[in-house]
Amino acid sequence: MTKLRIGQGVDFHQLVEGREFWLGGVLVPHHKGALGHSDADVLLHAICDAMLGAAGLGDIGLHFPDTDNTYKNIDSKILLARCVELIGGKGYQVVNVDSTLCLQAPKIKPFVPQMQAAIAGILKLSAEEVSIKATTTEKLGFVGREEGVVAYASVLLEKAD
Amino acid sequence: MTKLRIGQGVDFHQLVEGREFWLGGVLVPHHKGALGHSDADVLLHAICDAMLGAAGLGDIGLHFPDTDNTYKNIDSKILLARCVELIGGKGYQVVNVDSTLCLQAPKIKPFVPQMQAAIAGILKLSAEEVSIKATTTEKLGFVGREEGVVAYASVLLEKAD
Amino acid sequence: MTKLRIGQGVDFHQLVEGREFWLGGVLVPHHKGALGHSDADVLLHAICDAMLGAAGLGDIGLHFPDTDNTYKNIDSKILLARCVELIGGKGYQVVNVDSTLCLQAPKIKPFVPQMQAAIAGILKLSAEEVSIKATTTEKLGFVGREEGVVAYASVLLEKAD
Repeated sequence: MTKLRIGQGVDFHQLVEGREFWLGGVLVPHHKGALGHSDADVLLHAICDAMLGAAGLGDIGLHFPDTDNTYKNIDSKILLARCVELIGGKGYQVVNVDSTLCLQAPKIKPFVPQMQAAIAGILKLSAEEVSIKATTTEKLGFVGREEGVVAYASVLLEKAD
Repeated sequence: MTKLRIGQGVDFHQLVEGREFWLGGVLVPHHKGALGHSDADVLLHAICDAMLGAAGLGDIGLHFPDTDNTYKNIDSKILLARCVELIGGKGYQVVNVDSTLCLQAPKIKPFVPQMQAAIAGILKLSAEEVSIKATTTEKLGFVGREEGVVAYASVLLEKAD
Repeated sequence: MTKLRIGQGVDFHQLVEGREFWLGGVLVPHHKGALGHSDADVLLHAICDAMLGAAGLGDIGLHFPDTDNTYKNIDSKILLARCVELIGGKGYQVVNVDSTLCLQAPKIKPFVPQMQAAIAGILKLSAEEVSIKATTTEKLGFVGREEGVVAYASVLLEKAD
């Protein structure tokens, strides 16, 4: 039997005035930011969820409940590092991550290398094994109206011998 | 060449008064339920579609058309069991399932172990190989307005030797 | 370590009067078509993005910017063929593709075999390794109002020995 497992994650946050906009572990300059209990980093949350799901470890809400003040405004890179430990405890490591950020504005392309470096460092991968793609929704829906942001992630895990 | 194949599924249903709310093979107490020709189990439908897609077998609409009275109000666990047979006929079995339910209410966490047991039993997997995650959309869109429910699923299949 | 990588893609386009409707490399008769700089083939774009993401090669916007007149109204099959070359340059080939088209109308089932043949020809796969599923959103959201179309794709890549 294969030692591989796949996982997927999807996360949603509202965009509001007066919040910092954290995406992929990076502070992105913008007049709005994502609303949430933690730093509301939609990309890191989708990746965390994909890792936990692939390893059969539940979801981000189970491990880091938004009713727990420990996680109030927490840097989601800390949550991602914890997910690395959690999957490691079951013998898994990440092979690669692929993800898509859906947001109408701002353009995040200039920030992608910095996001890849931040995530790859935590996952102990090379930057090219952490893919971050971006798309608008062509003005459609709540993402198109700049009311929210969505991130999708897929991960492949492998069990060490 | 690898004996592995990946699949993905996404399914949508309206939430309306006066319907039972079936999710992951479990009846969830709620004032609304999902509208559909079958029992409208959005999670099982996404998993069925991911299995069929990975095996190159078309989609749920092809195998269980909503114009066929055979499937009127049918328990989607019967459809899932049929998908196991269909992929088995091509030599495939499921390695793992990861999924996310997007709904604003109710909280489904208490029902997840029961859903995992129901699905794992049909797929002949252990519960930890059937991951069911849940998220709200933070009040955004039709899910946020409690007009509908969405499920995403990813599956990994392996061909037996 | 495994020679496999996974990728995912999601793409959105508005549906408007007066445009041809290209889906999966096939011209689908409909009173609306997808709006975009290229032929706006939402399914091929999602597959391109999944391939690029799996190979750590960025995204479709990076390789085929919509500010470049080279890609004005271009047949997205040309972009897909270019993605095959790009992942091939890193030693990868596609194992299988699974995808879902979310649109309210028209019924695309009659066109799926032709789409599979078009895509499989470019990816040098058999038709059954290129899965195209379809679903409505049950009248929900911008897809349900026939204002837009969404495609999701997952791919598995393998590095040649």
